[in-house]
Amino acid sequence: MRTFLQRHNLRAWIAWRPDELVMLSGYFPFWGASLLIYFADAEPVLFVPQIEPRDHIPAGLGVQEYPWGDLKCSDPYSALVSTVGDELIRAKIAPEQVGMNRGAARTSLPIQAAEQIPMPESFAQQLSALVAKPDAQTQAGFADLYLRKTPDEMAAIRLANRVANVGLQVFFENAKPGVREAEVAAAVESAIYRQIGCGGIFHSRGWAMVQSGPNSADAGRFNRSTGRRLENGDLVLIELGTCVNGYWSDLTRTAAIGNPKAEVARILTVVRDAQQAALDAIRPGIPAGHIDASARDKIAAEGLSAFFTHHTGHHVGFRYHDPGFLILPGESARLEPGMVITIEPGVYVSERGGGARIEDNVLVTGAGHEVLSRIEGFTNEADDRGNRP
Amino acid sequence: MRTFLQRHNLRAWIAWRPDELVMLSGYFPFWGASLLIYFADAEPVLFVPQIEPRDHIPAGLGVQEYPWGDLKCSDPYSALVSTVGDELIRAKIAPEQVGMNRGAARTSLPIQAAEQIPMPESFAQQLSALVAKPDAQTQAGFADLYLRKTPDEMAAIRLANRVANVGLQVFFENAKPGVREAEVAAAVESAIYRQIGCGGIFHSRGWAMVQSGPNSADAGRFNRSTGRRLENGDLVLIELGTCVNGYWSDLTRTAAIGNPKAEVARILTVVRDAQQAALDAIRPGIPAGHIDASARDKIAAEGLSAFFTHHTGHHVGFRYHDPGFLILPGESARLEPGMVITIEPGVYVSERGGGARIEDNVLVTGAGHEVLSRIEGFTNEADDRGNRP
Repeated sequence: MRTFLQRHNLRAWIAWRPDELVMLSGYFPFWGASLLIYFADAEPVLFVPQIEPRDHIPAGLGVQEYPWGDLKCSDPYSALVSTVGDELIRAKIAPEQVGMNRGAARTSLPIQAAEQIPMPESFAQQLSALVAKPDAQTQAGFADLYLRKTPDEMAAIRLANRVANVGLQVFFENAKPGVREAEVAAAVESAIYRQIGCGGIFHSRGWAMVQSGPNSADAGRFNRSTGRRLENGDLVLIELGTCVNGYWSDLTRTAAIGNPKAEVARILTVVRDAQQAALDAIRPGIPAGHIDASARDKIAAEGLSAFFTHHTGHHVGFRYHDPGFLILPGESARLEPGMVITIEPGVYVSERGGGARIEDNVLVTGAGHEVLSRIEGFTNEADDRGNRP
Repeated sequence: MRTFLQRHNLRAWIAWRPDELVMLSGYFPFWGASLLIYFADAEPVLFVPQIEPRDHIPAGLGVQEYPWGDLKCSDPYSALVSTVGDELIRAKIAPEQVGMNRGAARTSLPIQAAEQIPMPESFAQQLSALVAKPDAQTQAGFADLYLRKTPDEMAAIRLANRVANVGLQVFFENAKPGVREAEVAAAVESAIYRQIGCGGIFHSRGWAMVQSGPNSADAGRFNRSTGRRLENGDLVLIELGTCVNGYWSDLTRTAAIGNPKAEVARILTVVRDAQQAALDAIRPGIPAGHIDASARDKIAAEGLSAFFTHHTGHHVGFRYHDPGFLILPGESARLEPGMVITIEPGVYVSERGGGARIEDNVLVTGAGHEVLSRIEGFTNEADDRGNRP
């Protein structure tokens, strides 16, 4: 981050998007109304509304509280803006030396996820007097910071994958004939939520979407659960986003119920082979396009190219979908140790009444790679660590 | 809506925020990347990405598809902006005759809720050539449209409350000594998700947060679930946001486990009395401040004013928290038939180790009011209506 600031002639960065806060400080905001000033040559300062829970703010982070409440302070953002302004003036930092991402698009959700991040448009306008508009190059440079994970971040993403696997176990246990898609998905999300309070987990939420039989053929376009009951012979696909303490896992599994017809079973087999081929190809220095081709060629060999309509993968960890290059045909960007990517080829054939995708999260290591998401029999016991990570 | 456009000299409004789409067309977007042009003197036109599911788009709405996909179209927004521009040129509408809300702050989440709405900042910039910046008066006028619900919207909000009550039943069944807060909350959310496919419900998601014993005293500042096990003598509070087919319910219940100490039980009793007093006061023409006072005076009479730190209520239905006046001390805005508000007094006393809030959703009727959220024994059976509302 310091290198990034120097390179772009910045002395400070204002971060408020949840994934930026996690990346820059390890702090995952509750309300989404926290703001961090990251200085090039001083300790960062975190501003939180007075209604924010404090027990999961990492120790050692300088915290300032700002007023919030509809009875005593109807405009908390103005107070925050002037406090932030004072802080920048005290550090003798001019607007053209400060960067910030304004938009909430594609940001991770905060813990209180049922409504969009509350930072209003007027807040961004008020801040604009304090912050230079970052150019495209600066924004791209910032996005680049998401790509390489530190050992602590790897551990946090590994934990998110372990929790997600608790959900996947429930998926395979519940994917039986007669059970409705929404029932399977609900059981998976429930299992993930229940991990709160276990092993330092203060936040755990899954978004599970289950598509069965003909619905699974839609899974390349969208993922959702309906009231359809699973039947013998179905392919059943689960798309599962999991956020644990602010770090994300993004997984997909496809189960075959009973004995699918050969042409349907073949879809799952080819996806499995394609995914394994892509996994096997992962090592530092390899271009992303090569990984994509490893999967796509297997699918093409079965004459199914037209039914693999999306990328083979993306970066993951600070968000459900991190910014950065995709694992796409022809992509020349190369994998480096510390990157965490998804590998998720899929084939969706309406005419055959089925679709399949298998998605894992993979850490690129110095020696090759580590699949973070293939875990058998993970159990996590409640302990007395409360909300302290 | 037409009256609003005329009053502000607008010939069209561009809506893309999920709650705006629901309000203007009844359509609840899946990806959050849909856009509606609402014309003053023509039928509205809805633009959806080609990856959008189509089966819950209301019949009769004109729909245009725009390209989307990372293999064949890497910049779907530019395509969308030029299509929208063409549409406005065809209708001979100038930028100063078009209004739009740009920011995603406080917007409802779309069905695919695990990541923020994907409309990027660059999209808003591209659109700015087509749209005049709405002034504060226009924005306030638009927010005013949220306040009065039509009979169809009332029915939709009633359904959201019925589904939420399925969750509340599960809350009371699970709120037992030894069960962890997160387990109770997970069971509630699961029961709500399972309603998909029942009685025309294509989307049903709950956000349940359970706080017990000393944690319940935090519930005036934030709501979350921890790993704490419920104990005899606890107050246990659930905050529950529920979205069904794009319409929202916002409820709170507080249970007493076993026999709380008298000073703790007293908190729940006074909140119950205060809430009932506010409910009893609701009728058309009454100022919101009067409703607030009905609750606040009961709490003051117990010497607990300092522990009721928030508003008594807000509008609800298109969002978890609709825009509009709050039920606050001194608020002079008057209730009108068709308004749906929450009534949610709360008292949170750390020194006594407990807090309580009771929240219902209330429709103001011509004759007085109807509490939408007090429903006993609601059951909803799976049917064959699939995703058709």
